[in-house]
Amino acid sequence: MGSSFGKIFNVTTFGESHGTALGVVIDGCPAGLSLSQEDIQPYLDRRKPGQSKYVTKRAESDAVEILSGTFEGVTTGTPIAMAVYNTDQHSGDYTALKDVFRPGHADFGFYAKYGHRDHRGGGRSSGRETLARVCAGAVAAKLLKEFGIEVCAYTKSIGPVVIEKHELSEAANNPFYMPDKEAAVRAMEYLEYEMGKNDSVGGIVECRITGAFAGLGDPVFDKLDANLAKAIMSIGAVKGFEIGDGFAAAEAAGSFNNDAFVMKDGRVSKETNHAGGILGGISDGDTIIFRAAFKPTPSIAREQKTVTVKGEDTALSIHGRHDPVIVPRAVVVVECMAAIVVCDALLTNATSRLSYLKNIYG
Amino acid sequence: MGSSFGKIFNVTTFGESHGTALGVVIDGCPAGLSLSQEDIQPYLDRRKPGQSKYVTKRAESDAVEILSGTFEGVTTGTPIAMAVYNTDQHSGDYTALKDVFRPGHADFGFYAKYGHRDHRGGGRSSGRETLARVCAGAVAAKLLKEFGIEVCAYTKSIGPVVIEKHELSEAANNPFYMPDKEAAVRAMEYLEYEMGKNDSVGGIVECRITGAFAGLGDPVFDKLDANLAKAIMSIGAVKGFEIGDGFAAAEAAGSFNNDAFVMKDGRVSKETNHAGGILGGISDGDTIIFRAAFKPTPSIAREQKTVTVKGEDTALSIHGRHDPVIVPRAVVVVECMAAIVVCDALLTNATSRLSYLKNIYG
Amino acid sequence: MGSSFGKIFNVTTFGESHGTALGVVIDGCPAGLSLSQEDIQPYLDRRKPGQSKYVTKRAESDAVEILSGTFEGVTTGTPIAMAVYNTDQHSGDYTALKDVFRPGHADFGFYAKYGHRDHRGGGRSSGRETLARVCAGAVAAKLLKEFGIEVCAYTKSIGPVVIEKHELSEAANNPFYMPDKEAAVRAMEYLEYEMGKNDSVGGIVECRITGAFAGLGDPVFDKLDANLAKAIMSIGAVKGFEIGDGFAAAEAAGSFNNDAFVMKDGRVSKETNHAGGILGGISDGDTIIFRAAFKPTPSIAREQKTVTVKGEDTALSIHGRHDPVIVPRAVVVVECMAAIVVCDALLTNATSRLSYLKNIYG
Amino acid sequence: MGSSFGKIFNVTTFGESHGTALGVVIDGCPAGLSLSQEDIQPYLDRRKPGQSKYVTKRAESDAVEILSGTFEGVTTGTPIAMAVYNTDQHSGDYTALKDVFRPGHADFGFYAKYGHRDHRGGGRSSGRETLARVCAGAVAAKLLKEFGIEVCAYTKSIGPVVIEKHELSEAANNPFYMPDKEAAVRAMEYLEYEMGKNDSVGGIVECRITGAFAGLGDPVFDKLDANLAKAIMSIGAVKGFEIGDGFAAAEAAGSFNNDAFVMKDGRVSKETNHAGGILGGISDGDTIIFRAAFKPTPSIAREQKTVTVKGEDTALSIHGRHDPVIVPRAVVVVECMAAIVVCDALLTNATSRLSYLKNIYG
Repeated sequence: MGSSFGKIFNVTTFGESHGTALGVVIDGCPAGLSLSQEDIQPYLDRRKPGQSKYVTKRAESDAVEILSGTFEGVTTGTPIAMAVYNTDQHSGDYTALKDVFRPGHADFGFYAKYGHRDHRGGGRSSGRETLARVCAGAVAAKLLKEFGIEVCAYTKSIGPVVIEKHELSEAANNPFYMPDKEAAVRAMEYLEYEMGKNDSVGGIVECRITGAFAGLGDPVFDKLDANLAKAIMSIGAVKGFEIGDGFAAAEAAGSFNNDAFVMKDGRVSKETNHAGGILGGISDGDTIIFRAAFKPTPSIAREQKTVTVKGEDTALSIHGRHDPVIVPRAVVVVECMAAIVVCDALLTNATSRLSYLKNIYG
Repeated sequence: MGSSFGKIFNVTTFGESHGTALGVVIDGCPAGLSLSQEDIQPYLDRRKPGQSKYVTKRAESDAVEILSGTFEGVTTGTPIAMAVYNTDQHSGDYTALKDVFRPGHADFGFYAKYGHRDHRGGGRSSGRETLARVCAGAVAAKLLKEFGIEVCAYTKSIGPVVIEKHELSEAANNPFYMPDKEAAVRAMEYLEYEMGKNDSVGGIVECRITGAFAGLGDPVFDKLDANLAKAIMSIGAVKGFEIGDGFAAAEAAGSFNNDAFVMKDGRVSKETNHAGGILGGISDGDTIIFRAAFKPTPSIAREQKTVTVKGEDTALSIHGRHDPVIVPRAVVVVECMAAIVVCDALLTNATSRLSYLKNIYG
Repeated sequence: MGSSFGKIFNVTTFGESHGTALGVVIDGCPAGLSLSQEDIQPYLDRRKPGQSKYVTKRAESDAVEILSGTFEGVTTGTPIAMAVYNTDQHSGDYTALKDVFRPGHADFGFYAKYGHRDHRGGGRSSGRETLARVCAGAVAAKLLKEFGIEVCAYTKSIGPVVIEKHELSEAANNPFYMPDKEAAVRAMEYLEYEMGKNDSVGGIVECRITGAFAGLGDPVFDKLDANLAKAIMSIGAVKGFEIGDGFAAAEAAGSFNNDAFVMKDGRVSKETNHAGGILGGISDGDTIIFRAAFKPTPSIAREQKTVTVKGEDTALSIHGRHDPVIVPRAVVVVECMAAIVVCDALLTNATSRLSYLKNIYG
Repeated sequence: MGSSFGKIFNVTTFGESHGTALGVVIDGCPAGLSLSQEDIQPYLDRRKPGQSKYVTKRAESDAVEILSGTFEGVTTGTPIAMAVYNTDQHSGDYTALKDVFRPGHADFGFYAKYGHRDHRGGGRSSGRETLARVCAGAVAAKLLKEFGIEVCAYTKSIGPVVIEKHELSEAANNPFYMPDKEAAVRAMEYLEYEMGKNDSVGGIVECRITGAFAGLGDPVFDKLDANLAKAIMSIGAVKGFEIGDGFAAAEAAGSFNNDAFVMKDGRVSKETNHAGGILGGISDGDTIIFRAAFKPTPSIAREQKTVTVKGEDTALSIHGRHDPVIVPRAVVVVECMAAIVVCDALLTNATSRLSYLKNIYG
């Protein structure tokens, strides 16, 4: 259960890291959107492993196949199914893990929940699961672009190394997707140091959504930031989410935290953006800014204490092809989940006013 | 839209701050739970205003009426509807606000979304909306107690004043629900200072869920922490959510952040709890710990710049009965939303194994 | 569970026949619809008992109160809650039924499901539950009228007496809502005959939806007729549903059953309407016609065999205020459920095309 | 939209008749069910075309591939994805249909809804879509068998030819799946006669569900028969649904239609089964019996009037590989949809009582 997300733009994912295929069905994508494999693959390539020495060496080709939902290069309004077949599965790598619960992983939870587990690389709880999210997010992002909405994520920090610049064009030039060349160098040094100790690191991804007009999101439970929080927290390894000033707002005074409204170029605008573009759960027309905290990769070669499925204390060193930091590859996943949320808000909002319906039905 | 929450334990709320009534319908509460008005009212009383000089002086009686779903003091399995009628509505207080968008409030977003707004105290976006959440949460908490699960929230910080002790019995003794007597004194001094400047403050609520056994939550989108994040972020004024070490985990090394599994009293246990009781979205049997960051109350008497609905720049001072800090009254709301999430996870989990069904159907 | 219906125009009902109140929350009704108690009450009055000697003598006032969701006579886009308080509850009438399962009723099913039952008039399974459906349907019907869509139901047959005319204006003139004066007289004779034997009768309600343009409904599971079928079959006492020629189509040849498309007044039209206005689950622009078969009222004064909750064979005669035929009062319920379905299809359809979204967002 | 069905046992289908693949994702199947391709294929084979001269000659191999959700032959609790690749696609057959709306088909509705259509064999509205339902239904049926519940459908009538016997073992011996050898011969004669006129025929499928204990289904909207009605009416070509005595009940008296409860072998039983095993939407422990009316195949070689996409009157003869009667191949589809509904009711019912949860969680 729990593999579907979104009210109208409804995404259902499937697949295990070492099963036959992973994929996604998007039900509710409007008809008339130009779409082909070429729109999806670049997003998948951004999360592809093996691109630098700081990410896993697994040579996943991760080629997406569109199984349904388009005709002559355009979406038909029917479900868009996409699949990525698993090809480079070294299940053998995981035999040693068969009988132990890896610290920091979902192994024990799955075992407790289902009475068994798929020990091959985490099965459903593997990071490979995010492949399906990226496929869906690429479609969402394409649809948002039709309305001038762009979602852009990047690495804000690696361990204690925080960016000081926001040169977004720089992000693609370094292996950390940091929009600050110097910070990327410092991040590399920090990571090398921790890798030398057979250890791993975490970091923070920041995401900006531009072009989102005011009025997206629903009051009460389906607030735009509540849905973003769920979407982002549902990515494995995320331990925190904040929007706008986030936790810092808890220490601020109201007179500082409130963003004054001002007229600018004939439209309602804000002098500051402490809110991060969302007030009372509804977009205010400003840039939406949020952050996600990723924990360090739990799979480390360093020896750790743990227990076996039989309930015996033991020790464990995890070898194999693991990312010493997951953050750079997670940037596109954050971007894609955010795109799905905003896309869904855009669609549901179309039903919120009688006058909108009259625009459509005349 | 967006006024329902939960897959099985499904909560639908309704009502505006100055309408006839606010309330909730819970569909999916199991039959056989002893339940009466006395189980709900104490929760409502905890969020009642007028209890100290640090919260609004509105004399809301907020008496809940159970409209359906129980018979002879026990839940029947049919929808439990509860309503709280609005009695102390000073709509007149809001006339001055009719034509302006209050900074830090949802006014502008509602106007942009729906083409109009209910200016009387925020309407649906008012904090009064949380009444309905508390009614539902009280039922969820009662059900959880049947399984030894307890949800307990308290104030961790008010502005920059952070607790240093966790004496939970102390929380009810001070107006801030802080489990640290000295911190509460310092919080009071800080708040008085800001109130003297016609300003407001925020803070952090922390929540602990004990007794939650391993296996609750679902992989992928309905991770237990993802649902908690949505539930908590959907409370007005919350700008951040983190579980376990949260944002601090992003700076830690994997060897520190991983919690070693150890056998203790014959069951799988953890030496530390950096994860906050949830791994891969599924409870690990440890205490679940999360935090929510609340921004300072946006309604302040201090003059602020803003614009009118006609698009003219103006200035605004908000007088009337507003909390200078919302955090103490929000504690029970956090607790209730958390209870709803865990209760729903408990119910959905009952369908996750064939062997569970055989336990039931024999 | 199962008390919510509709994807966007989402209706959640609550209440038992002898509880405090019955009601409904509509979440997802667009903002901007003029709405007041006066729009709802006439629909409720149509299902009110006590209007002729052929329906129960219970003097239910059934006055609806709107608790939320409107401001200054217009919907705000937030949940519309409505309640009807129970006033004429003769719970005493049901004491004799406390320990037996009434044949033809849900008593045994509820007992088997929940391990107990509310014996007072059926509780949640009472026909009074349809009050809440009618409140919601009245809102749906009002919204549909904005688009020229009208839903009109009437009695097609009472027992073996079938109408031969369709003079819809006549329906309101006779106690059976039959659009055929002579048939109504024959129905009365038939009913009097069965009542003389302490027996009850059933009948068929037919419903026509005019003005529904082509394109409503979704392929596969949410076909417009599939959702209508669910909505109608969910009304207590309905045992069959058919659209267009329905069961008769199973005996026809394809060349007869197919409706030829022809151009008429510049738009695609059909020469016949065997399909009943829906093809492949999507409206074809023609009048939507369906029928619902209602079984005879199960509460009869005639003695019947049954068993007690303790598992003893016994006999039972049900006295009290029961309709000898439910069909006339069910007409408005059928109409309301159909309105809810079409309204929901109208709203979801607004998200089905990229070009529609561009109509809205420019 | 509308391609998902079921609350817990949630089925999402995808695919077009002439796209790359059709398939289904089941989210919510409990862990621990033994499952392999061999459990699914026999169901698919039953709907396979080319088995007699009364069904289409398309040589669809329709081999199912399980993409996820099982490990070592057992379900894991994660989504079960299955796909059937399209291999025998004669898209060319449909070129002649590109610019016309076929009478009796969804072509015009799709065009009106989405502003375009996939003319290749109906695309999403093709009967091939039922492949995905059958894959899901086979899993549901397997799960139901664990609890002694069996779903069995057969042909009750072909055109005017109605069975007079219920020898279920006979059904597999004739091309019509009729449990009456003589009726099958008469059906054959009737069909040959209509085929000689280039015409097609319809019929009725009846379904019996045995072993379903009392208590399945939910009050109000998710009544077991309401969900069955939706499931069955969502199968293309179905125009009517009835349970138990169905439409005949509308003509009966209450004293006849009510089923007397009697004790039998120590359990509550019924003397008759006019209700068809469901009372007030909840199973009563008796055999569930319902019927579905299928219209005649709309694709006929006989010339029909229709219009073009450009709005011109024209005439059309549909050649190619079409079933002169769809009923025999639809039997397994009815069975599978019914299995999905009952399976979902079984799962949701597990959350309906506090005592059930205590059975599980101790």
